[in-house]
Amino acid sequence: MAGFHVHSVLVTGSNRGIGLELIKHFIGKPNPPEVIFATCRDPEGTRAQTHVLSPDTTDPGSIKAAAKKAEAHLGGSGLNLLINNAGIVSPSTLESATSEDMLSVYNTNVVGPLLVTQAFLHLLKKAAQGSNQKGMSCSKAANVNISSVLGSTEKTPETFFVPVVSYRCSKAALNMLTKCQSMGYKDAGILCTALHPGWVKTELGSDEADLTVDESVSGIMKVLCNLSEEHHGILVTWEGNTLPW
Amino acid sequence: MAGFHVHSVLVTGSNRGIGLELIKHFIGKPNPPEVIFATCRDPEGTRAQTHVLSPDTTDPGSIKAAAKKAEAHLGGSGLNLLINNAGIVSPSTLESATSEDMLSVYNTNVVGPLLVTQAFLHLLKKAAQGSNQKGMSCSKAANVNISSVLGSTEKTPETFFVPVVSYRCSKAALNMLTKCQSMGYKDAGILCTALHPGWVKTELGSDEADLTVDESVSGIMKVLCNLSEEHHGILVTWEGNTLPW
Ligand SMILES: NC(=O)c1ccc[n+]([C@@H]2O[C@H](COP(=O)([O-])OP(=O)(O)OC[C@H]3O[C@@H](n4cnc5c(N)ncnc54)[C@H](OP(=O)(O)O)[C@@H]3O)[C@@H](O)[C@H]2O)c1
Ligand SMILES: NC(=O)c1ccc[n+]([C@@H]2O[C@H](COP(=O)([O-])OP(=O)(O)OC[C@H]3O[C@@H](n4cnc5c(N)ncnc54)[C@H](OP(=O)(O)O)[C@@H]3O)[C@@H](O)[C@H]2O)c1
Repeated sequence: MAGFHVHSVLVTGSNRGIGLELIKHFIGKPNPPEVIFATCRDPEGTRAQTHVLSPDTTDPGSIKAAAKKAEAHLGGSGLNLLINNAGIVSPSTLESATSEDMLSVYNTNVVGPLLVTQAFLHLLKKAAQGSNQKGMSCSKAANVNISSVLGSTEKTPETFFVPVVSYRCSKAALNMLTKCQSMGYKDAGILCTALHPGWVKTELGSDEADLTVDESVSGIMKVLCNLSEEHHGILVTWEGNTLPW
Repeated sequence: MAGFHVHSVLVTGSNRGIGLELIKHFIGKPNPPEVIFATCRDPEGTRAQTHVLSPDTTDPGSIKAAAKKAEAHLGGSGLNLLINNAGIVSPSTLESATSEDMLSVYNTNVVGPLLVTQAFLHLLKKAAQGSNQKGMSCSKAANVNISSVLGSTEKTPETFFVPVVSYRCSKAALNMLTKCQSMGYKDAGILCTALHPGWVKTELGSDEADLTVDESVSGIMKVLCNLSEEHHGILVTWEGNTLPW
């Protein structure tokens, strides 16, 4: 991990859960990023070490405002690593899923990441252009979307004991979005990867989950350190394994 | 195709395009279905040979009303084959996609099929229960979702010359929904399959497309005739080939 230095990082949904733990791990690195953007819809919970932005990732206006503030903080340099982590789940089944549930989960889990990446794209491009590193990496320029094994259509038979239909559909779509981003942003040198954090003890993952946030995020940090071209446009787990779509 | 007899079939979005051609082909079979439900949001365009229902497939109330009418027409028997065909596209790219576009395409292409299948599920179950056929088939009970190769995340690099990001995300999610339905409705004996009709000359497919509606639907009719357990929970083309997710 020694060679893994990210100048600037932004994590959406980082006031709790996996997002907060990611911020903690970045701060705790032997060579922490110079600029860390934590985000948090509710401005209570502000942390001193980091710049706090407050986009609601389903609100285009508030995302644009956050991107403007980030740009000012970055003072001419680009953003190396954008982690679209904000997400929600709802306990819908094939029988109980409603329009409202389907649309609101899709809005947060797919439209949010799309809009956030649109708003920060010029900063990611700037980071890629400003880097003299060969190839793709998180220390150059990367867009990582936190997805889930529950968005793997192929793996559904193994995981359907938790139906969460609206969530599954949203994460399958987020995987597609990640693939599209990998096609669209390849020439700009921006690494685009979807990442499954494992089943993690958070409000979303519940107490029954397999992993603590520290276990999950320790794995994720190693994965981020090793991400390269070969991970462009794929879905990897917190342990670095590839999942099928 | 001799053994392929469907007592009743419903096709959403069948006032034009692939849906209308499906209705024509069913009517033209040597042994046509006893009951054919064409659907059409706009009651102009009514066809004599068929029962016309008028759900807007994004409107739960109008779907439920259509299911009630269908049930009355069926007079105690179930519905064998439900084809969720209604769909829309919009020319969105990674740069131009908006919240509104993402949500409205998802609403028609994913939420619509979910709600339609929910509303007709008891009739599909009744058809399965009332059948003495072994195994799964369209003449027993089937839910076919018209998807697209553009919803195959794996195939994206081959097809990204048409970006249509909001459409791709929606069809990837529809594929996931189909997989979930295949898990949830297996015990009820309802065959659940996603089907790619080819690139077809319709309003949605444009004049530049490869296939006429007749070519596409002739292929689809053969595929429907041969659908069985081995196609449960997969994505097949109008030529009967399996596509990856
Ligand atoms: N936990 C697991 O087992 C698991 C497994 C697979 C994937 N994931 C994924 O991991 C990511 C993080 O989940 P988590 O387990 O850490 O969940 P969590 O503890 O419930 O945290 C979710 C975070 O997302 C934020 N968020 C939700 N909607 C938002 C919006 N519209 N705008 C801005 N922020 C928003 C929340 O902020 P507020 O406090 O303001 O609501 C919160 O910070 C999600 O994408 C999730 O799908 C989790
Ligand atoms: N054509 C292709 O190349 C191609 C390729 C792959 C997949 N597909 C899929 O094939 C299916 C049929 O497409 P097509 O090419 O036949 O398109 P089309 O000619 O544009 O017809 C679309 C049909 O869907 C109906 N529809 C749209 N929104 C609806 C709603 N909310 N409620 C009820 N009906 C609605 C339309 O009804 P109105 O007339 O009332 O709008 C129309 O009947 C779609 O799911 C499409 O994604 C097509």
